[in-house]
Amino acid sequence: MQFTAKQIAEFIGGRVEGNEQATVSTFAKIEEATEGAITFLSNPKYTSYIYNTKASIVLVNDDLKLEHPVDSTLIRVPNAYECVAKLMQMYAATLPKKTGIDPLAFVSKTAEIGKDVYVGPFTYIGEGVKIGDGTRIFPNVTIYDGCQIGKNVTIHAGAVIGADGFGFAPNTEGYEKIPQLGTVIIEDDVEIGANTCVDRSTMGETIIHKGVKLDNLIQVAHNCEIGENTVMSAQVGMAGSTKIGAWCMVGGQAGFSGHIKIADKTFVGAQSGVISNTKGNGEQLIGAPAVNPKMYFKARALDAKLPEMYRQIAQLQREIDELKKKLL
Amino acid sequence: MQFTAKQIAEFIGGRVEGNEQATVSTFAKIEEATEGAITFLSNPKYTSYIYNTKASIVLVNDDLKLEHPVDSTLIRVPNAYECVAKLMQMYAATLPKKTGIDPLAFVSKTAEIGKDVYVGPFTYIGEGVKIGDGTRIFPNVTIYDGCQIGKNVTIHAGAVIGADGFGFAPNTEGYEKIPQLGTVIIEDDVEIGANTCVDRSTMGETIIHKGVKLDNLIQVAHNCEIGENTVMSAQVGMAGSTKIGAWCMVGGQAGFSGHIKIADKTFVGAQSGVISNTKGNGEQLIGAPAVNPKMYFKARALDAKLPEMYRQIAQLQREIDELKKKLL
Amino acid sequence: MQFTAKQIAEFIGGRVEGNEQATVSTFAKIEEATEGAITFLSNPKYTSYIYNTKASIVLVNDDLKLEHPVDSTLIRVPNAYECVAKLMQMYAATLPKKTGIDPLAFVSKTAEIGKDVYVGPFTYIGEGVKIGDGTRIFPNVTIYDGCQIGKNVTIHAGAVIGADGFGFAPNTEGYEKIPQLGTVIIEDDVEIGANTCVDRSTMGETIIHKGVKLDNLIQVAHNCEIGENTVMSAQVGMAGSTKIGAWCMVGGQAGFSGHIKIADKTFVGAQSGVISNTKGNGEQLIGAPAVNPKMYFKARALDAKLPEMYRQIAQLQREIDELKKKLL
Repeated sequence: MQFTAKQIAEFIGGRVEGNEQATVSTFAKIEEATEGAITFLSNPKYTSYIYNTKASIVLVNDDLKLEHPVDSTLIRVPNAYECVAKLMQMYAATLPKKTGIDPLAFVSKTAEIGKDVYVGPFTYIGEGVKIGDGTRIFPNVTIYDGCQIGKNVTIHAGAVIGADGFGFAPNTEGYEKIPQLGTVIIEDDVEIGANTCVDRSTMGETIIHKGVKLDNLIQVAHNCEIGENTVMSAQVGMAGSTKIGAWCMVGGQAGFSGHIKIADKTFVGAQSGVISNTKGNGEQLIGAPAVNPKMYFKARALDAKLPEMYRQIAQLQREIDELKKKLL
Repeated sequence: MQFTAKQIAEFIGGRVEGNEQATVSTFAKIEEATEGAITFLSNPKYTSYIYNTKASIVLVNDDLKLEHPVDSTLIRVPNAYECVAKLMQMYAATLPKKTGIDPLAFVSKTAEIGKDVYVGPFTYIGEGVKIGDGTRIFPNVTIYDGCQIGKNVTIHAGAVIGADGFGFAPNTEGYEKIPQLGTVIIEDDVEIGANTCVDRSTMGETIIHKGVKLDNLIQVAHNCEIGENTVMSAQVGMAGSTKIGAWCMVGGQAGFSGHIKIADKTFVGAQSGVISNTKGNGEQLIGAPAVNPKMYFKARALDAKLPEMYRQIAQLQREIDELKKKLL
Repeated sequence: MQFTAKQIAEFIGGRVEGNEQATVSTFAKIEEATEGAITFLSNPKYTSYIYNTKASIVLVNDDLKLEHPVDSTLIRVPNAYECVAKLMQMYAATLPKKTGIDPLAFVSKTAEIGKDVYVGPFTYIGEGVKIGDGTRIFPNVTIYDGCQIGKNVTIHAGAVIGADGFGFAPNTEGYEKIPQLGTVIIEDDVEIGANTCVDRSTMGETIIHKGVKLDNLIQVAHNCEIGENTVMSAQVGMAGSTKIGAWCMVGGQAGFSGHIKIADKTFVGAQSGVISNTKGNGEQLIGAPAVNPKMYFKARALDAKLPEMYRQIAQLQREIDELKKKLL
């Protein structure tokens, strides 16, 4: 499959700068591209690469200003990142898709599997599980009894859906298990990363709403709820019964205490520890315990000045003592 | 299976307030309960729900004071949370239990498997592994050669027991592997969460004592030891050779340095970093490096005042300079 | 297999102190050793154990000074830790090694598998995957299509290599998936821990260079690169496109922002958050955001003095006010 700069520009509505007949057959990162590859420039951090890239075509933003001419043919578009994503989606749609239930998977007789579903080898689908149309479940996934998975969901290898929530009641000799009688509901268009865990609820359901994207190695505890189109980076942890709103963004390794409510469009920085309810939509939180970014960065900057502040206080005390002596 | 408020109250020793013949057949969370469900109110955060819940029966604490009458039948008990747990255990005991070694599991010929054991599909039990009576091992678990698992242990999907500890000795060209010749011992009544890893020791054993409960995605490094009835929330990490006492509680995403000793009944807050031995039993630790909660919360509160303190110090300097001038 | 102190001392070039005919057949930790075991003393934390150990032989450093005689036979060597590692490697080489592709593994017809490879039960090797000679892949591992694994690599149970990178472009209704068209390259002599995830790149490759050692539950995002002989403890997370140099050491639970470059021989403390490029080789970083250890430990020490500093500032203000009054 080969395309010319002219064809691509027409398809994505861009403007060619250079050789309209430049031809590409693959995608590459700007710093690694070779002849025959199309790449893109979006993050300003990478601007310097455009002068040396061997890519035949580079998608760039309309407003990119060059310091001197470049060898590659450019296609100028309003948003280079969006356009390369569009081209990649187009290309990906032409690739063969895995479908069907692999004979090496285990699917309970009482499970209901939709159309055009892929279930990979060594994936376990428990009793009464429902899987919607077009959902893809990679190898070595475990879905415990009774969980419901929507349409066009992607679950990556090693994920565990519906293991027991972590509930124990202490007695004098040890802990007694609190049975986890609920399930997990994963709605349409969700993506679950590799080795991520979503626990079943004690009663009722743990719910991952439509369009949520969870990266790898995330922990979603029992009775949690994640609102539509919220995205979470790898290794985030949510304690029990916490509810996160829609369209939130959560950085990697962040943690949430149990039994709190996070409003829509909340932005949580990486490694933050969120321990209480947000006050309204659109808050930005960072640090542990999490505060607003302005306060966080001020405090962190003054961290570096603490030794100076400590010395200054002692110095002020000495100067005051001097003054006192003089005034006696 | 249906029960009346009267039957339940008799069973758990409670007092009915409302319709003794109210009938339930399922459990539900107070905010989601519908007719026919029993729920409970224990966490004061949820008190407002009692006025609107559709639950037929609500278990409440003896001392709950209502602002106005409610529709649901109440059962008053000394500890609502304990009572609902008791009812759920009773109910869970009536459910069918998975038992037997699934034909899709791999069990080494030299492994010894006790009575009433469940081993799920795609679970791997290595050579010489011993599994005690009544233990349940969910799908996709890997137990390396030589590990010993006690009685009535639960191991959730994707957990890995007995992988090599992380030991390498540097030389000029790279690292040489230090063979991990020990094993893992998991005693009776332990629960291990999904995708949690317990590494084998370099020599001797990594030991998880009786009644320990580990949540998901936890890392227990080589040569570690965890005392009886200690509980750890998800994503906790222990570095090598660290020993944690009995009856400790560890919050999610906390970490422990290697080669340290944590005494019994230590409480470690979420995301803490514990880097040294505790001084005695019952310490509370939080933050990184972990300190006592009083010091931690004071320091965090003063974080917010750092900019003000910084300004004040400069202001004090100016005032002193003024005074000095006047005294000249 | 039994060895005398004399034989061992000759083999590793050490000097026997005590009974040259003392005989051992197993390794043990100093605090747990029984008769017939060889142990070692390297970490000074454990020195007190030498006076009570039941080990028949203890490897110790040349410069160890004893307060009084001990029962065990000692072998003095320049580096006891290195010597015990050497003995363990020698012993491990005599143990039977797992080899071959287990009939319960899934290996795609288009995969290329080298010589002397072990692939455990329930491990999935996707299309076009290449596995080099001598590589060992434990049970329940998933290697997605197109990934390349070098020679003498070890991949522990539950690891996932080549799952989709976490890339989504927002639109008004939700997020569109950005296809992850690249792959993963893992070079020779790498060790990957249990349940660790290495994502495939968006385009080009995610690369783990020769000799890298990754512990359990680590997240390596799309387009990352890890330089030769870098070691990372458990639960570390790298965000997308970050490049880490050679011979770095990264403590457990540390995190790296995306699109940054870490130079060679960088040392990153446990739980640190590295958010920007390093300035040169050999930097030491700790804390979040990570700074140099001197600044970090000063700031943490002054954390404890914040309440005192806060009170002192108020006190200074009062004293100045007093002085002002006197001067009026």
